[in-house]
Amino acid sequence: MQLSTRITGLTGGGSDGWDVFLKARAMIAKGINVTELTIGEHDIRTAAPILRDMHAAAMNGHTGYAAVPGTRALRQTVAARVQARTDVATTPDNVLITPGGQAALFAAHMAACDPGDTALYFDPYYATYPGTIRGAGAMPQVIETRALDAFQPRAAALRAHSKAARSLLINTPNNPTGVVYSDETLNAIADICREDDLWLISDEVYDTQVWEGHHLSPRALPGMAERTLVVGSMSKSHAMTGSRCGWIIGPQDAIANLITLATHTTYGVPGFIQDAAKFALDQGEAFEAEIAAPFKRRRALAKGVLARQNTVGLIPAQGAMYLMLDIRATGMSGEAFAYDLLAEHHIAVMPGESFGSSAAGHIRVAMTIEDAGFEQALQTLCAHADALSRR
Amino acid sequence: MQLSTRITGLTGGGSDGWDVFLKARAMIAKGINVTELTIGEHDIRTAAPILRDMHAAAMNGHTGYAAVPGTRALRQTVAARVQARTDVATTPDNVLITPGGQAALFAAHMAACDPGDTALYFDPYYATYPGTIRGAGAMPQVIETRALDAFQPRAAALRAHSKAARSLLINTPNNPTGVVYSDETLNAIADICREDDLWLISDEVYDTQVWEGHHLSPRALPGMAERTLVVGSMSKSHAMTGSRCGWIIGPQDAIANLITLATHTTYGVPGFIQDAAKFALDQGEAFEAEIAAPFKRRRALAKGVLARQNTVGLIPAQGAMYLMLDIRATGMSGEAFAYDLLAEHHIAVMPGESFGSSAAGHIRVAMTIEDAGFEQALQTLCAHADALSRR
Repeated sequence: MQLSTRITGLTGGGSDGWDVFLKARAMIAKGINVTELTIGEHDIRTAAPILRDMHAAAMNGHTGYAAVPGTRALRQTVAARVQARTDVATTPDNVLITPGGQAALFAAHMAACDPGDTALYFDPYYATYPGTIRGAGAMPQVIETRALDAFQPRAAALRAHSKAARSLLINTPNNPTGVVYSDETLNAIADICREDDLWLISDEVYDTQVWEGHHLSPRALPGMAERTLVVGSMSKSHAMTGSRCGWIIGPQDAIANLITLATHTTYGVPGFIQDAAKFALDQGEAFEAEIAAPFKRRRALAKGVLARQNTVGLIPAQGAMYLMLDIRATGMSGEAFAYDLLAEHHIAVMPGESFGSSAAGHIRVAMTIEDAGFEQALQTLCAHADALSRR
Repeated sequence: MQLSTRITGLTGGGSDGWDVFLKARAMIAKGINVTELTIGEHDIRTAAPILRDMHAAAMNGHTGYAAVPGTRALRQTVAARVQARTDVATTPDNVLITPGGQAALFAAHMAACDPGDTALYFDPYYATYPGTIRGAGAMPQVIETRALDAFQPRAAALRAHSKAARSLLINTPNNPTGVVYSDETLNAIADICREDDLWLISDEVYDTQVWEGHHLSPRALPGMAERTLVVGSMSKSHAMTGSRCGWIIGPQDAIANLITLATHTTYGVPGFIQDAAKFALDQGEAFEAEIAAPFKRRRALAKGVLARQNTVGLIPAQGAMYLMLDIRATGMSGEAFAYDLLAEHHIAVMPGESFGSSAAGHIRVAMTIEDAGFEQALQTLCAHADALSRR
């Protein structure tokens, strides 16, 4: 029985970039001890006080349909947090609670783009971006960035496509590069969005993981609040990946329409999870810093390891839970290097090519295992690259 | 800033049919004691043992990303339950776990229909159906049923549209009518689906609430497993509305593609909720009967009340948590009657017109308040209708 062309064409027909990851998983299933540096998820679980609050909310009866837009209390908390951090007036009517950040990315594109509209995004990119755009019926158009520019987007590259487009999706702090977009970059992006009347969909799920410089939410730039849909989530900031709780911040009219969409696509988020999310947000910035601390620590360890060798290059690791390493001195592609490292040393990393073509000759290392093992794995990785480069 | 035509056009531009409901809510907010017979939700909360199992799963660390298709354990449990009840071979690869039944309805239409395809559904219908179809980019085409036929669909009415369509959405036991489709009806529908190569999207979320006759899943009819997507949910059967946990059962290839769609639209369902759902399903049919019992009891009370008068007619109440009452003897529309009943007696019911045009002159009564109050409200309703009919 014939399925829709849209659903069968979601991945664009190519590899989904997870081949190395799947090979590592298969090795683990066979009992091989693989060091996994592939996964964008904390090595801790959701904190017990959050789970206890969730359970109390459920036992107190918050188990029926929650309001589709989200509970007033959580929308209010998210709005206040965003306003405090960005100085942009934000009310609960600017907030839709979604079942996770991915649902927010999809809904934002549904709101911005009609079928056939062009939706822009930068390479390298998080694996779901092009499929999310296709799922919304829009046409993905990728824009390359360069290792030379530390993967900061260039205005000229964006202008080559912006006139014909309807939306631009950005992600800062960035997965997979670990780059935080500079104020200059974001101002240039905002200028183009205003000039060419683009929606800006700003994926800010790593906004609590900034190690150098600062995170600027582009919604705070002049004239941008009316054309920006910010995607946020509890996943990375509060180690609540499995709770599937995120949000969209946007203009009131956009949110009103997104609520109608949510009524027809998800019908809300569990009330007890929303209560737990509010509890977690109420713990404030100290708790967020605690959740981010392991990545900050491991980044420092990594900088130490990389400073003691000259083969592997580190793209400035300004934020998020990843390092992007330049292994071109080995003469190999990121993919070939990743397969080789997995076979030789049972260390799994993601090839840069898994995230598009701009990060070819690079690998992404997730800082998501305990410190000593992480440092040792990086040392092995660097020594392996060095040996390869001398062949 | 211009939103997409799709999102602004989701509701088709008309009233969403919830005006009486919203008026009742506004009266309640003012402190008026309104008897609400509008809501499709149990008057009990999710059972404590289920919530305790959920909490144990979370505290045991099932708080990270769950597998996008659903946990193997839950998919296996759902598959075994469906196979036992339908005699259709069903494996975990035929099951996608979704964040609720509404997400399943949306995803099923995304899988079946390309933008512009015609998607059929019967009137009267659950409020989100046409918007769900529009959200997937398809063209909703409604097919009327008749009070005269107790709202059982007629093959001739379906055949008038089936040649040009891609999918048909049905719901049995039915919201809002309380009708259970007969084997004859379902066989006729299956014949047409096979002849005209339609996907059948079968919303069976009320399958544990059958008071007369039996529920036949059309996936069990000859040649239908390959073209049927069954939508199921924990909401109605296990009083877990707020947990947002449902599923799609379908051919393996369709499920594989729906998993890809889920990766780009929702990214899975909380693992601890899936564990709780498995726990709830493992309680077996006795527990499901216990959850359904209040509606069965109230239906018997309602039949008693209605048998003692001659003004209000009862559409055969064969299943689900609703009664569809014929109030045409009053000479009023369902909407006018509902407003009048709310104003005069502070009893809120849904006008039949909220569910399309086929149930004009009817009202839907949800059996979702405690027995004595429910019986009393029905008596008042009947007396009010009787007085109106004598004017």
